[in-house]
Amino acid sequence: MKLSDIGEDHLIGEIHRRCPPEWKADFSDDVAILAGAKGPLMVVSVDNLVEGVHFRTTTSSAKDIGYKSLAVNLSDLAAKGAKPRACFLSLALPPDLAVDWFYDFVAEFIELAKNSKCPLRGGDSSRSASGIFISVTIIGEQRLDRMKRRAQAQIGDVIAVTGTLGDSAAGLALLEQSPLSSKNRGDQARAHLIARHRRPTPRLREGSWLAKQSSVQAMMDLSDGLWTDLPRMTKASRLGALIRVDDLPLSEELLLEFGDKAQRWAVGGGEDYELLLTVKSASFPDLRRRFLAQFPEQRLTAIGEMYKANTGKMNAGGDGSDGIDWQSSVELSGLSVYSHFKKPVHR
Amino acid sequence: MKLSDIGEDHLIGEIHRRCPPEWKADFSDDVAILAGAKGPLMVVSVDNLVEGVHFRTTTSSAKDIGYKSLAVNLSDLAAKGAKPRACFLSLALPPDLAVDWFYDFVAEFIELAKNSKCPLRGGDSSRSASGIFISVTIIGEQRLDRMKRRAQAQIGDVIAVTGTLGDSAAGLALLEQSPLSSKNRGDQARAHLIARHRRPTPRLREGSWLAKQSSVQAMMDLSDGLWTDLPRMTKASRLGALIRVDDLPLSEELLLEFGDKAQRWAVGGGEDYELLLTVKSASFPDLRRRFLAQFPEQRLTAIGEMYKANTGKMNAGGDGSDGIDWQSSVELSGLSVYSHFKKPVHR
Repeated sequence: MKLSDIGEDHLIGEIHRRCPPEWKADFSDDVAILAGAKGPLMVVSVDNLVEGVHFRTTTSSAKDIGYKSLAVNLSDLAAKGAKPRACFLSLALPPDLAVDWFYDFVAEFIELAKNSKCPLRGGDSSRSASGIFISVTIIGEQRLDRMKRRAQAQIGDVIAVTGTLGDSAAGLALLEQSPLSSKNRGDQARAHLIARHRRPTPRLREGSWLAKQSSVQAMMDLSDGLWTDLPRMTKASRLGALIRVDDLPLSEELLLEFGDKAQRWAVGGGEDYELLLTVKSASFPDLRRRFLAQFPEQRLTAIGEMYKANTGKMNAGGDGSDGIDWQSSVELSGLSVYSHFKKPVHR
Repeated sequence: MKLSDIGEDHLIGEIHRRCPPEWKADFSDDVAILAGAKGPLMVVSVDNLVEGVHFRTTTSSAKDIGYKSLAVNLSDLAAKGAKPRACFLSLALPPDLAVDWFYDFVAEFIELAKNSKCPLRGGDSSRSASGIFISVTIIGEQRLDRMKRRAQAQIGDVIAVTGTLGDSAAGLALLEQSPLSSKNRGDQARAHLIARHRRPTPRLREGSWLAKQSSVQAMMDLSDGLWTDLPRMTKASRLGALIRVDDLPLSEELLLEFGDKAQRWAVGGGEDYELLLTVKSASFPDLRRRFLAQFPEQRLTAIGEMYKANTGKMNAGGDGSDGIDWQSSVELSGLSVYSHFKKPVHR
């Protein structure tokens, strides 16, 4: 049997199954949380970016990849409202790679590290037989009483997201349609979607603010898309959920370019790096008002509610175990859960 | 210009050059040292293992690679006498890889993690276009007053090493000569050298003990070999050194198999993962006596002294900038500094 016969989540499950029980506490989360003898908790996250899997050099520049390889890790800290403390860059690069690619990559990585007050403190670099491999480890700090974990959602919580969904996946689709001409097409809507794919903004400030609010119960970032990420939260919290797909926040640019396909991108598309959170129902209107006062350019949209597990009806191609009721006026069937080891149906 | 035109150390230099001055404090060390608000310091290290660069699946089994990918990181902690706290495993694997390879790899990684009390707390896994890529991040703890850094060597210090040198590189050479027959050859000396390559023992207990001794000034682990690693210590400490090559500790097995070539392996061969340390001269005999009482199966060998920079004579193929006087009765010319991006002359 080969790895392609099983999915990525299965591999991670196999790793967990072999670990002693006392290690398993926070495998359900997007970060590891380490308690020190004293002081704040350490939040640690590791993310890979692999050429041909997470990016192509034909559709992303060295600068874009340098930015994104740190941004996706900062997003993991944002999901816990953690303050960046240090990052570590591990590289394996093919010997025939242009030195300028390396310089551009490093310059942009360090620029974002500076802007995020997240010093680069080490790493490793080596040759690869072929292809570019990047792995970034990030360490942040957060207080225990402000740690919003995936597993902390409660029955009746409002499910909300920051920003808009689907832009990044739509941007990637545009790039793959016409990788070379996209740079100068001058089409603002397309340029916006492509920028959302190339330069996602980690929601560090928003995450830090939300983590301080006692009405926020669970939080994670949307890296693989709502369709894949929400089940991780419901599973960790042992709950079901109802999602009103027609309420998903869509950008004007996504609607302009993709019209009635926009909602499919918003449900199934990955790499938006917005925050997904659950909020005590009675507190949501006040939380939203204060959030918008704090971040006037941002959005915070209620998209559904948490329910008791297994009460949600399956109506949209889910495998039945997710316990999520996707209420939608558009057809969602055929959306697949993204797995790096299986060929995704959409994306 | 391509990466193959420049060396790995040059790449790392280019990364450092782009970092703001306040980040650079501990780039000279093999680990990053992060100070918390309270409590012990965090020691962080990242190491890559790349197929075709650091290992071949023809000469190392999945179990060996699982063991080694954690062992080399534990060795970085050992060099600081740090207590393991957590590890993180980042994998990119080709879709056609046998699932059994993955299971064997993970089982052995976790076995060593358990034995080293170093819980696996997270990571990432994804597909690679081709080849196996492994990156491990390790976090440990150490008190500030027990932190022995590369840069802390003083003029007159005795230079010492644990264990024996050259075994691992000789073991690799044996494997490459006859990868398939080596398993069952029944030749104990060869089997020992091969085991030293496949299963290096991180010197955690020795490092922890040595870090507590006030007479130990600087410490690092020998990953790339004395020829490459010692200049890193002399450079960080801004000192020169004299090494008595005839005093290097050699295993009986290395002498038996390689005779008069043994010293070349001991100087130039990498991956021994023994500890290199400097000790206040007057304290060395007493330190050694207590070390051997504590670790009766181990060795601690004086191999030279630290000198004022640029007083060492070059006599053995060094590039002149190392400031190291390699006093040797055997010919060392032609030994090359190992670099992943250049083809090594020996190894």
